[in-house]
Amino acid sequence: MNYLLLRAANGKKTERTPVWLMRQAGRVLPEYRKLRLKAKSFKNLVQTPELSAEATLQPISAFAVDAAIIFSDILVVPEEMGLPYTMIEEKGPVLEKTIKNKKDINRIKIIDEEGISYVNTAISIVKNELNNRIPLIGFSGAPWTLFAYMIEGEGSKIFSNAKKFLYTQPALAHDLLDKISKSVINYLVAQVKHGAGIVQLFDSWAGILSPEQYQEFSIPYLEQICKKLSTMVPVIVFAKGAFSSLSDIAILPSSVIGLDWTMDINLARKWSKGKTLQGNLDPCLLYADYKTIEKKTIEMLQRFGSHHHIANLGHGLYPDTEVGKVKCFVETVKGFKP
Amino acid sequence: MNYLLLRAANGKKTERTPVWLMRQAGRVLPEYRKLRLKAKSFKNLVQTPELSAEATLQPISAFAVDAAIIFSDILVVPEEMGLPYTMIEEKGPVLEKTIKNKKDINRIKIIDEEGISYVNTAISIVKNELNNRIPLIGFSGAPWTLFAYMIEGEGSKIFSNAKKFLYTQPALAHDLLDKISKSVINYLVAQVKHGAGIVQLFDSWAGILSPEQYQEFSIPYLEQICKKLSTMVPVIVFAKGAFSSLSDIAILPSSVIGLDWTMDINLARKWSKGKTLQGNLDPCLLYADYKTIEKKTIEMLQRFGSHHHIANLGHGLYPDTEVGKVKCFVETVKGFKP
Repeated sequence: MNYLLLRAANGKKTERTPVWLMRQAGRVLPEYRKLRLKAKSFKNLVQTPELSAEATLQPISAFAVDAAIIFSDILVVPEEMGLPYTMIEEKGPVLEKTIKNKKDINRIKIIDEEGISYVNTAISIVKNELNNRIPLIGFSGAPWTLFAYMIEGEGSKIFSNAKKFLYTQPALAHDLLDKISKSVINYLVAQVKHGAGIVQLFDSWAGILSPEQYQEFSIPYLEQICKKLSTMVPVIVFAKGAFSSLSDIAILPSSVIGLDWTMDINLARKWSKGKTLQGNLDPCLLYADYKTIEKKTIEMLQRFGSHHHIANLGHGLYPDTEVGKVKCFVETVKGFKP
Repeated sequence: MNYLLLRAANGKKTERTPVWLMRQAGRVLPEYRKLRLKAKSFKNLVQTPELSAEATLQPISAFAVDAAIIFSDILVVPEEMGLPYTMIEEKGPVLEKTIKNKKDINRIKIIDEEGISYVNTAISIVKNELNNRIPLIGFSGAPWTLFAYMIEGEGSKIFSNAKKFLYTQPALAHDLLDKISKSVINYLVAQVKHGAGIVQLFDSWAGILSPEQYQEFSIPYLEQICKKLSTMVPVIVFAKGAFSSLSDIAILPSSVIGLDWTMDINLARKWSKGKTLQGNLDPCLLYADYKTIEKKTIEMLQRFGSHHHIANLGHGLYPDTEVGKVKCFVETVKGFKP
């Protein structure tokens, strides 16, 4: 396929900058809220392939972006490994059990080569519906981020239990990270086999580690995953807040570096060793008026330059964003002539 | 006075690296918990000069650090301006009213040259007790961080209302930031007049703004404050997570740049234009064993080099940190011979 987004990811020059929206982009749409009600629970939406396929396709119809991303959640991996979660309204995910010691680590299983079947099925449905118009992005949480949830049991500003684990039981931490990484590899390879044409790793909690800890507890596992997946499809590494580690991320065997909105574009260009960059408009910008959104989007495009760039927000959309504002962002990118 | 910490702040060579601990360091101490109970509420502790003076002095006796920092809270400024807060156990501060529009901004008052009297009194008591052994650090929240609380009304991961305000009502945002900055200047000048020998600005929510927004909505106000205060005492600017803005912070008329634990020391040295740096050990490191704490503290000291450095953690202590571990950190710094 001659997909615009994949050409940009692979470092080819493109006639215009491709654009897509981070996971759960659909949640600003009224049709998503209907679907969410129909599904009863968030987890049921994630685990029912027909429903998650529909949630994947909704933002494609609404915004005409250059790629779809499979609708899912990063916590499906810990769940499949033996740590089920509940999504609590206004609070976020809570894991029923957490990892405390060696016995807990021994007990959890590695996801095998079959991956996660409901995700595979959803990917097949979406792939069929897309009919090769645009590529489908598969994804997984990065090992450190999944580790953080598996120890902490829920979202946290500082994940002090997870970080305490790194400092007090580093060898065990590596054992767990290794099991997670093997699971992520199998999970993503299965996604690719079912139709994902590119994959993104979300290291959402990268920004709470010191550069030294990131180097020890995240980079080697990202490397294992990128090494395997890059033989099949382009890989995007999105490590939120990992400014101090950008040069380490740049030398991973991956294709694209995702940038959040706090990253300085010029510095990122300098450090990224010619890799394609993705991002990085502040999702809060979409609260502004249309004129401001257009202006700031164009300024961002000019800063990144016309090639080696995939336009996106620097994070997911906030649920109370107006649909028209999202369209304005996408259309400004698509209409931009440098 | 020939204080070690002030000499380091002023860029002089020092016989060893000075060390202190970020505000509320006492909260790991059993004697603090007793005092907190005696005070009934956190706010009463903050607002009763005899009690907050005692809370200020407790970590000095316990850890023999090279400076005291007045025990207080950044939200005393919004409160004095007309937005009272309540400190809720396990949740944090909640403001009873927030700023929504021009009328709200017109209504709030600018803190006058008298500053905040209970803080001034506490400073006088501490100053007297310290008897010139070590300097006393005054502090304030930075304008952007105070603005964020005044709009949002409570802590938040993303402060989307505060950021929305910047994007949708930038002129009003500047009006409010201006009133806050004038208040902070008067508040800090009063602290200095009562005995603070150095002041620190906490821009705790710096890291959620894009570099461009930080440049527009934080830097000019930090500049106003630094310009005035620097004529009296050294100023430390601690902008948590503002990696992309370090070069802007480096050119402020201030003496010291505070670094959180995610900052790369070598890059910070390169960008800091010879200014003294402060920080930056991960507070979670103090969960590790003594040997690890010692080793990592020495590595940090070596990275910063023997001059132009004030040792500190990269953030406040977590309440469940063991007292002995804090001592280990402080003593390792004080015993270090490069």
